[in-house]
Amino acid sequence: MATIKDVAKVAGVSIATVSRVINRANNVVPATVAKVEAAMVELGFEVQGNRRLTINQGNDLLGLVVSRFNSPFYGLLTQGVEKIARKHGRNLMVLSGEYDEAREQEAIDVLLAKGCRNIVLHSKGMSDKVLTKLAKQLPGLVLVNRHVEGMEEQCVWLDNGEGTYLATKHLIEQGHRAIAYISCEMAVDDKADRFNGYCRALEEAGISLDPDWIEEVPFGEQGGVTAANNLLNKGLPVTALVAFNDFFAAAAMQVFKEQGISIPERLSIVGFDDVLPECYFSPKLTTIRNPIESMGMNAARLSIEGKDSALVRAFQPLLIKRDSVHSL
Amino acid sequence: MATIKDVAKVAGVSIATVSRVINRANNVVPATVAKVEAAMVELGFEVQGNRRLTINQGNDLLGLVVSRFNSPFYGLLTQGVEKIARKHGRNLMVLSGEYDEAREQEAIDVLLAKGCRNIVLHSKGMSDKVLTKLAKQLPGLVLVNRHVEGMEEQCVWLDNGEGTYLATKHLIEQGHRAIAYISCEMAVDDKADRFNGYCRALEEAGISLDPDWIEEVPFGEQGGVTAANNLLNKGLPVTALVAFNDFFAAAAMQVFKEQGISIPERLSIVGFDDVLPECYFSPKLTTIRNPIESMGMNAARLSIEGKDSALVRAFQPLLIKRDSVHSL
Repeated sequence: MATIKDVAKVAGVSIATVSRVINRANNVVPATVAKVEAAMVELGFEVQGNRRLTINQGNDLLGLVVSRFNSPFYGLLTQGVEKIARKHGRNLMVLSGEYDEAREQEAIDVLLAKGCRNIVLHSKGMSDKVLTKLAKQLPGLVLVNRHVEGMEEQCVWLDNGEGTYLATKHLIEQGHRAIAYISCEMAVDDKADRFNGYCRALEEAGISLDPDWIEEVPFGEQGGVTAANNLLNKGLPVTALVAFNDFFAAAAMQVFKEQGISIPERLSIVGFDDVLPECYFSPKLTTIRNPIESMGMNAARLSIEGKDSALVRAFQPLLIKRDSVHSL
Repeated sequence: MATIKDVAKVAGVSIATVSRVINRANNVVPATVAKVEAAMVELGFEVQGNRRLTINQGNDLLGLVVSRFNSPFYGLLTQGVEKIARKHGRNLMVLSGEYDEAREQEAIDVLLAKGCRNIVLHSKGMSDKVLTKLAKQLPGLVLVNRHVEGMEEQCVWLDNGEGTYLATKHLIEQGHRAIAYISCEMAVDDKADRFNGYCRALEEAGISLDPDWIEEVPFGEQGGVTAANNLLNKGLPVTALVAFNDFFAAAAMQVFKEQGISIPERLSIVGFDDVLPECYFSPKLTTIRNPIESMGMNAARLSIEGKDSALVRAFQPLLIKRDSVHSL
């Protein structure tokens, strides 16, 4: 086996310098580090203990690309991926793709450039075609919270349409017929799925959709405020409401309460995602549980264990009944 | 200037291979990548456009070590650091130190190993002594949300004691004399500072602290529930409450409301941090604004611009008056 002495000889530097490179001292010039590391790789020199080389050794890493940093949803996703990274002795590196194709590609490129070959990707910007090509090139890539036809082995996703279907069906079973839906303006892939689930439940019950029931607003709490105000301006032509996510539900609920609309007596509300602590809602929110932390864990496992793993890829949504739905 | 041809010659590989390394193709064996990169560094070969080398080139990076991923507080911090990273054309890499000294050190080591020399660190585990040493070795390190004596040039912090002092003083000015304080069990550096600010305001007003007013509970929403229940079990011997953070305040408020305690008429509440959307509180929470996003931005700027920068290091807390305080 190659020794430090061999490395020093091949690199044409002193043993002390090799030692400094191994220990990642800050006082070695980059060109020397490069020479020493090239010699180590060439000789198959193995670094002992938890010391590491800086070159082409991304096996200690797990990469995660989220769509944004500041959000409980991505916080939970990251937490799930981190749990698995720790189990496998990997360090988790998180980058943000900002819902943008070029940014997502850049984040992946940075991880690849650092030697990281295991990447969990939350992509909202890339097309199915681009993702399919990427997945073929990179077996350690796993797409989380999105289903792309033909690359199911490298995907972990939720049946979003089933979620809003369950939410709407629950309201119909409680006697509601006029049910609003708050959708998001951004053209993300789950937008259509969630809207379709809502429509499917109405259709099944023979209810024809009234366009006045639909509000399409920007992401975030402010969107929920806008949607609630719009519905109030239209005379609140509904007795119940399904929201695209819990943030919309929380903000809308606050507006309704301030306007004297009692929840759930006058208006029942069902959210989606279940990523906010219960204590932020009064009454507590009935919602659809999106197991994003659990999906993150399985995506990380798949990335590390490979696509032959029998882990669950297709997650099912659950209706969580709390206190924001009233029977008519 | 060195050309691709020169690099190929020195590395002893074909021009096509050099090109593949530049373009980060996946089909070049690590030993070859190392040889080519070493030759590039040796010759001072410059890669054009946005192509990048994988070795010793962490100048495209900004590193951030948070204490945990799943939290609005760290979400806002990350968002602030990311804004500056983008302005400087850097990619932000985020790792978590989990309130633990060894994990924090490991996160820094990973960033250094990837060539990253600009690091914003949120440390709860490392001692002042360790941090001071680290800061000397690494001029691009900036500590955020913590003040370490003697390394002020590489710190961005909030006057935490002043924050709880302002909160408590505000309650006293509204006529309150019996004021509870919810503290956290974990021995973080701001725990003592925030508690001292509360004590200072009481002392100034000639109020002697009653030990029954103090609840020390675990971090997180559940801690707030416990504290509220304990205070109720003691017969709620106060008319007002200052919470270590908004999470405690939110969870406690929910418990009090469920027990029929009207907020703010029977109990006034002031939080700390102002990191939660207003819509999660009813009534809206009066709190102390911790400018964590803004501190993250200045920490990132300091890391990149260097310690001679005249940027603000010491941030002042602000009292944000909303609807959770009642005058006696």
